[in-house]
Amino acid sequence: MVNRLKEDLIATGSLGRDPPKRVERYDQLDPQNGVTRPAGTEANQKTRDYAVERMKEAGLSVSIDTLGNISGRKEGSQANKGTVMSGSHLDSVINGGMFDGALGVFGAIEAVRRMNDEGFENERPLEIAVFTGEEGSAFSPTLLASSVLAGKISVHDALNRKNAAGQTLGEVLQNIGYKGSFERSLDDVEYFVEMHVEQGPILGKEGISVGVVESITGITWIMLTILGQENHAGTTPMGMRKDALVAASDIVSLVNKQAREMVEKLGSATVGTVGKLNVFPNGTNIVPGRVEMGIDIRDVVPENMVSLKNEILEAIKDVEKRHEVDIRVELPEVHVPAKLSDEVVNTIDSSARQIGITPRRMNSGAGHDAQNMSKIVKTSMIFVPSVNGISHAPMEWTNWEDIEKGVQVLTQTLKNLSRMAKG
Amino acid sequence: MVNRLKEDLIATGSLGRDPPKRVERYDQLDPQNGVTRPAGTEANQKTRDYAVERMKEAGLSVSIDTLGNISGRKEGSQANKGTVMSGSHLDSVINGGMFDGALGVFGAIEAVRRMNDEGFENERPLEIAVFTGEEGSAFSPTLLASSVLAGKISVHDALNRKNAAGQTLGEVLQNIGYKGSFERSLDDVEYFVEMHVEQGPILGKEGISVGVVESITGITWIMLTILGQENHAGTTPMGMRKDALVAASDIVSLVNKQAREMVEKLGSATVGTVGKLNVFPNGTNIVPGRVEMGIDIRDVVPENMVSLKNEILEAIKDVEKRHEVDIRVELPEVHVPAKLSDEVVNTIDSSARQIGITPRRMNSGAGHDAQNMSKIVKTSMIFVPSVNGISHAPMEWTNWEDIEKGVQVLTQTLKNLSRMAKG
Repeated sequence: MVNRLKEDLIATGSLGRDPPKRVERYDQLDPQNGVTRPAGTEANQKTRDYAVERMKEAGLSVSIDTLGNISGRKEGSQANKGTVMSGSHLDSVINGGMFDGALGVFGAIEAVRRMNDEGFENERPLEIAVFTGEEGSAFSPTLLASSVLAGKISVHDALNRKNAAGQTLGEVLQNIGYKGSFERSLDDVEYFVEMHVEQGPILGKEGISVGVVESITGITWIMLTILGQENHAGTTPMGMRKDALVAASDIVSLVNKQAREMVEKLGSATVGTVGKLNVFPNGTNIVPGRVEMGIDIRDVVPENMVSLKNEILEAIKDVEKRHEVDIRVELPEVHVPAKLSDEVVNTIDSSARQIGITPRRMNSGAGHDAQNMSKIVKTSMIFVPSVNGISHAPMEWTNWEDIEKGVQVLTQTLKNLSRMAKG
Repeated sequence: MVNRLKEDLIATGSLGRDPPKRVERYDQLDPQNGVTRPAGTEANQKTRDYAVERMKEAGLSVSIDTLGNISGRKEGSQANKGTVMSGSHLDSVINGGMFDGALGVFGAIEAVRRMNDEGFENERPLEIAVFTGEEGSAFSPTLLASSVLAGKISVHDALNRKNAAGQTLGEVLQNIGYKGSFERSLDDVEYFVEMHVEQGPILGKEGISVGVVESITGITWIMLTILGQENHAGTTPMGMRKDALVAASDIVSLVNKQAREMVEKLGSATVGTVGKLNVFPNGTNIVPGRVEMGIDIRDVVPENMVSLKNEILEAIKDVEKRHEVDIRVELPEVHVPAKLSDEVVNTIDSSARQIGITPRRMNSGAGHDAQNMSKIVKTSMIFVPSVNGISHAPMEWTNWEDIEKGVQVLTQTLKNLSRMAKG
């Protein structure tokens, strides 16, 4: 019965495309026309409305909290046991894909529908969660609402964050009709399971349909401003230059080299990337006077991440001396790696095997609300493959057969967790 | 009597600043508030109007040709001898300096005033020229009007070039009242001398006030598009990447290294620069899928320029293979190096020594209208130092004492050329 879920994903996948378009197959994707529905936009509202309708149809009791998080709850036969929660987000990046987030929400709704169809009686309460502002495409930081739930940011602070148009989160939630009046606490929640597209190439390369996530990578960003001396490219002899881009290029190369060396040496999942680099004044005939760049370092092992960061900072000092430039370093808040719950990982693994599916244990290289949830409740994730590893882009795709296997594993996992004795 | 010239430069140096500001000393420069007067703008018109008034006051007969070039002419006592022309341009880059171009125009006007004051009688006709569109900041290519005079571009083509607002050169000249009706030919012109700021650091470093330009550098541009594979920086293992920026960084490094090696090996004036580099999509957490970059190679020796270009193109092929990216190469029109007239170079040199100034022979690393003029008339340039080698920027400055020495050399040179027997 993947058809209900497929229809949910295709229907919401047409929202936030300009022009709107139903995409049912990979060959209908348009690399120019992805899904754009940042938190608080009209497309985000329509997607939320669609999900709320489906939740109500599935017999769930829907409530909206003060951050706009949507909850669809089904009480269990044993009210004294902790809740089993599943869900994801309905906002998107700008020009992104139709599965990122939506799969975890509609997958969970489909799981409840299948339990309803079977007449399955859950002992623990089941709750489907839609978290506000996961992507950070309208309001920073990413993982906004789950950061509040995890106690990293206050409700007040979150509601006063502003988007590029200067509107606060509180205002846009009011505008789209998703500003609730109560603060959700997770005190009653025992387990959280998020189904998501992998957003990377590993499952696809190995031909495996379902992944179980053991750790979510930590993220360290190093933001650099390199100050050299802007000069005329024709009149400034090579020996009199302080070229900020020549210095920056050394840093791009060394980040790549040191991350690769760490992977080779430790067999680790380390990655190091310079994804952003802006040159000033950026004229072909001008020696660059300034470069701004952002380095992204990730590892699931905290020590590896710290050690690569320190190696890179050390090498940057050397570049600074060698090229006679001034390098200013900013270190924004670090996301520490999240080790997920063995109990939930093992339950997903055994639930999959129970229905004849062999999952791959793996790490998540992307951040997810699950990493915040894991600070307070027992958490893991179910991954399904991303075609060519592409995500956050219009060509993001996951095959329907893989989605069916993923939702089967999610359904079985939620059933098993809902009857878990302890807690 | 530098005061007249100083006032001309300060007065026109306030035009095109926002807010307008008279800058009389280096410490009054504001790095945010340079001079902006691209061809055909209101600030360009006001600067032209100011120059035309000064020309008329100096007794020159002013005419405007179909490209908006301004000519201020003083007939000589021997009408059958070829004209001595001097001048430069009054347009500027965006947020540039107050001396670039203006010095060569007002310096030539001052030279005529000094000849008038002395009662000097020129044998050959003298003509002051203001060329339209030298900078290319409104209409491409750079050196627009002198390219027409040199026969590289047709009048029709030049007048139909469009600025960013979609107006043609013909239209903007009409708007500012500088669309003349005749085509200037240079058939009657024998010599051309352009005074200009060096725009580089050499005279300043050596403490010399006046340079005589023997050659104007050739320019080769190599424009590259590097196509890798855009991916999520967190989920794409190091071994599965095709990072366009890592490949681009190798190219930035090798351009710099190969140009330096050529200078060391040959003692040449070779320069190689990557001044422009754009990363797509340019997010800290995205492996870059595409980089566009521009390489600028210059030398006054044609063979050096060609050999560095070929070395770099060869090395780019190697980068393409090593990083498994696809590199598309575009080679826009090359400016070949211009060897200037020995006769004019020697006349400037001896004229300077005649008044007790020892000039330095040098090359120009920047392009100038003089390089086009040198194709048809005997041409050289007089340089004065740029403080810290800075130009095309608000902090461009030349000390008044150096300007005085430069205009003394220009005056003596024009006097001597105007009585040159042959031609």
